[in-house]
Amino acid sequence: MPDFSQYLDEHREVFEADLCELLRIPSVSADSSHQNDMAAAADWMLRHFQTIGLSAELIPTKGHPIVYAESPPVEGAPTALIYGHYDVQPPDPLDEWISPPFEPTKRDGNVYARGATDDKGQMLTHVKSGQTWLETEGRLPIQLKYLIEGEEEVGSESLDAFLEDRREQLACDVIVISDTSQFAPGQPAITYGLRGIAYFELRVSGPKQDLHSGTFGGAVANPLNALSKMLAALTDGDGRIQVPGFYDDVIELPAKEREQFAALNFDEAKFMEQIGVKAVQGEVDFSTLERRWARPTCDVHGLWGGYQGEGGKTVLPCRAGAKFSFRLVPDQDPKKVAASLESYLRSHCPLGVEMELIDLHGAPGVLVPLESPFMSAAAAAIEKGFGTAPVFIREGGSIPIVNAFAETLGADTLLLGWGLDDDNTHSPNEKLHLADFHRGIKASGHLWEELGKLKR
Amino acid sequence: MPDFSQYLDEHREVFEADLCELLRIPSVSADSSHQNDMAAAADWMLRHFQTIGLSAELIPTKGHPIVYAESPPVEGAPTALIYGHYDVQPPDPLDEWISPPFEPTKRDGNVYARGATDDKGQMLTHVKSGQTWLETEGRLPIQLKYLIEGEEEVGSESLDAFLEDRREQLACDVIVISDTSQFAPGQPAITYGLRGIAYFELRVSGPKQDLHSGTFGGAVANPLNALSKMLAALTDGDGRIQVPGFYDDVIELPAKEREQFAALNFDEAKFMEQIGVKAVQGEVDFSTLERRWARPTCDVHGLWGGYQGEGGKTVLPCRAGAKFSFRLVPDQDPKKVAASLESYLRSHCPLGVEMELIDLHGAPGVLVPLESPFMSAAAAAIEKGFGTAPVFIREGGSIPIVNAFAETLGADTLLLGWGLDDDNTHSPNEKLHLADFHRGIKASGHLWEELGKLKR
Repeated sequence: MPDFSQYLDEHREVFEADLCELLRIPSVSADSSHQNDMAAAADWMLRHFQTIGLSAELIPTKGHPIVYAESPPVEGAPTALIYGHYDVQPPDPLDEWISPPFEPTKRDGNVYARGATDDKGQMLTHVKSGQTWLETEGRLPIQLKYLIEGEEEVGSESLDAFLEDRREQLACDVIVISDTSQFAPGQPAITYGLRGIAYFELRVSGPKQDLHSGTFGGAVANPLNALSKMLAALTDGDGRIQVPGFYDDVIELPAKEREQFAALNFDEAKFMEQIGVKAVQGEVDFSTLERRWARPTCDVHGLWGGYQGEGGKTVLPCRAGAKFSFRLVPDQDPKKVAASLESYLRSHCPLGVEMELIDLHGAPGVLVPLESPFMSAAAAAIEKGFGTAPVFIREGGSIPIVNAFAETLGADTLLLGWGLDDDNTHSPNEKLHLADFHRGIKASGHLWEELGKLKR
Repeated sequence: MPDFSQYLDEHREVFEADLCELLRIPSVSADSSHQNDMAAAADWMLRHFQTIGLSAELIPTKGHPIVYAESPPVEGAPTALIYGHYDVQPPDPLDEWISPPFEPTKRDGNVYARGATDDKGQMLTHVKSGQTWLETEGRLPIQLKYLIEGEEEVGSESLDAFLEDRREQLACDVIVISDTSQFAPGQPAITYGLRGIAYFELRVSGPKQDLHSGTFGGAVANPLNALSKMLAALTDGDGRIQVPGFYDDVIELPAKEREQFAALNFDEAKFMEQIGVKAVQGEVDFSTLERRWARPTCDVHGLWGGYQGEGGKTVLPCRAGAKFSFRLVPDQDPKKVAASLESYLRSHCPLGVEMELIDLHGAPGVLVPLESPFMSAAAAAIEKGFGTAPVFIREGGSIPIVNAFAETLGADTLLLGWGLDDDNTHSPNEKLHLADFHRGIKASGHLWEELGKLKR
């Protein structure tokens, strides 16, 4: 594909400008004050697909709209469905950003902005590869179907119904998602395993109003004391989860995979330096990679209640709350976890305190067979795009949509991450390495070619 | 004292008119727009003391002025220092007041106004009793020193320095404060015990910035998980404090006091209804009054960290914090508690998490010996003023000024509350029962007489 490479080289700046345009839209799906920005981002995607020559439509949902685009079927060749999302995480805490989250800024070969890597930048590589094929060859070697949603960061509430409704239209042989990371800079990876998730909000309440802690303390259960104890009861000192039955369905990690993980020469000292901790911590008898990729865990994400201002206020607050989640591994079932969690927490809720457990969202973990021909096609394309063969890894995060695709469309997903571990996903100063953006576009273009070689 | 009683009867309306005049001045110490009103209230106090025949002065401070007045020394008789305050709480929310907060209004035998009970009305009883003695007998049986400040509702910032500066002038044998409540309507009380306090802020931090909980969870210690565990470790399920040595200096409640508390016929069902809880909770083998008045406790006042917005954010937050305090009982030392707390928390702080413990403030508990002759004098005076012998109670809160008096002047404090639990202190529709105002003046007048019987 000589024209292909040349086109890419000539369009680096244009592609980056397109990316920055999208990054400027503060499409924070969790915050209802960004409703208009969500609509603007969806509209941007729609117009962009149309501009490059695809048929595209915007599908309203109860939440944020889905953008769908496709190229024509190619006789005898497979169909790939590309999934991505145009919504981003909230940018808080704002004062820790070096440049504003929605003013994309280039520094040191990176573009800094909320959504740079997760997922606007990575998602756009597959749009730009499609554009390049169409501009240089006038056609695509396989049929592409793009499904770009706006609720990934808030649990993809509308997606299941959409997949059900459009099951025939979305029919495909393989799904491609770029929303993960390379194993290391210059070492691309294919992610074949994901952890699942079961995410909860816990609210506790006590007296009908805040009380004076001097007059009442010691005789009236304090919701903040209770909340601390309930959260503390979730894990032991090593992070092993104490909810009864939690480990019943956990598939133990095979020796072969443990060997593969060990062979990756993960640099633990660098890892600690990168995130700024003096020690790693977790379940005994598991390595850091095993703890992150293949073992369940429990993290508290948010805590609130009572007086948070300066100095001291002697209050016995009437309510408190927390958000927390379990990461799950195959074959754990989020619904089963939720049920045993609820009764476990009730057994730890003291007299005089009422609790409410809200099941915010859940998804099981995923494992894709390493032997699949799609996996080989992806490996070849990545080697051409990045100049290095990929390693096969797992990822600690969850991509619930991968579960939904497997269930509704019966297709496995290729998780081809162009990001880096230090991209500050979900954190201040999120970035994408621009060289990886362009390598991703090239690898994606080769992927359509490699998949085109597979007969249906 | 026949003249005394007669004088009181004849001056009920005049005394109420004086009280209303003072209540009409909106002396809100927290609100700088009331600066002039604060000066007006201080001036009113100054002129009032002078009018009744005492020498009085106004002492400027960095904040609001202190008013000081005294009568001549009485050879061989003790000296009493009366402490009170002319400042009041802000009146908000204004629209919940039935009559305006600074237009004192009589209804159902009460006067309604901000400051009616806290503390203008209660404080004035001791001024009116002095006036009555001077008008009827031409002299006071003991020396009285009045210290009326204007910053009680904003932390008494200027008082410690004033006590130090005037240590000799303020020298006294006993201190009298009326700024608390009767045990029940018609059942006056002497508060002989206060709990102390040791108030802390705990800050924990982990990675240098927020991380994605999927990618890092399980391998990196989470500050919110750690904070929950550290707070949970402070107490057992019944609220008994787990810090080593915490109970070493706790004076166990004598059987006699437990009997006295039990005899008070505290209405627990009404208490629970009032604060809106279905159950009381606390240390086993102690009653609700014992738990509130005479046992140490630990309350978390505030919690913060991570994501507190709508929906779910899968973040492993880099920091979290909490405010909490222990209520102390004699003879616990707040400094000793702070030291053992710090090492206990460090032993519960996991690898990869840093902690900082900030000692915000501390004060020991207070117990005035029940056998003190001043206590007997007060009991006799209250019985004469109210027609009912007082009960002896404790209070779970702390009154820092009582500690300051004990430390600087070396004198015990008599806490003689004329108020009622439903006086709406710090709330809309604050009131004082006028019959209690007059009974308070009478009891106060008898107190000077009873104290006069004690030889120095």
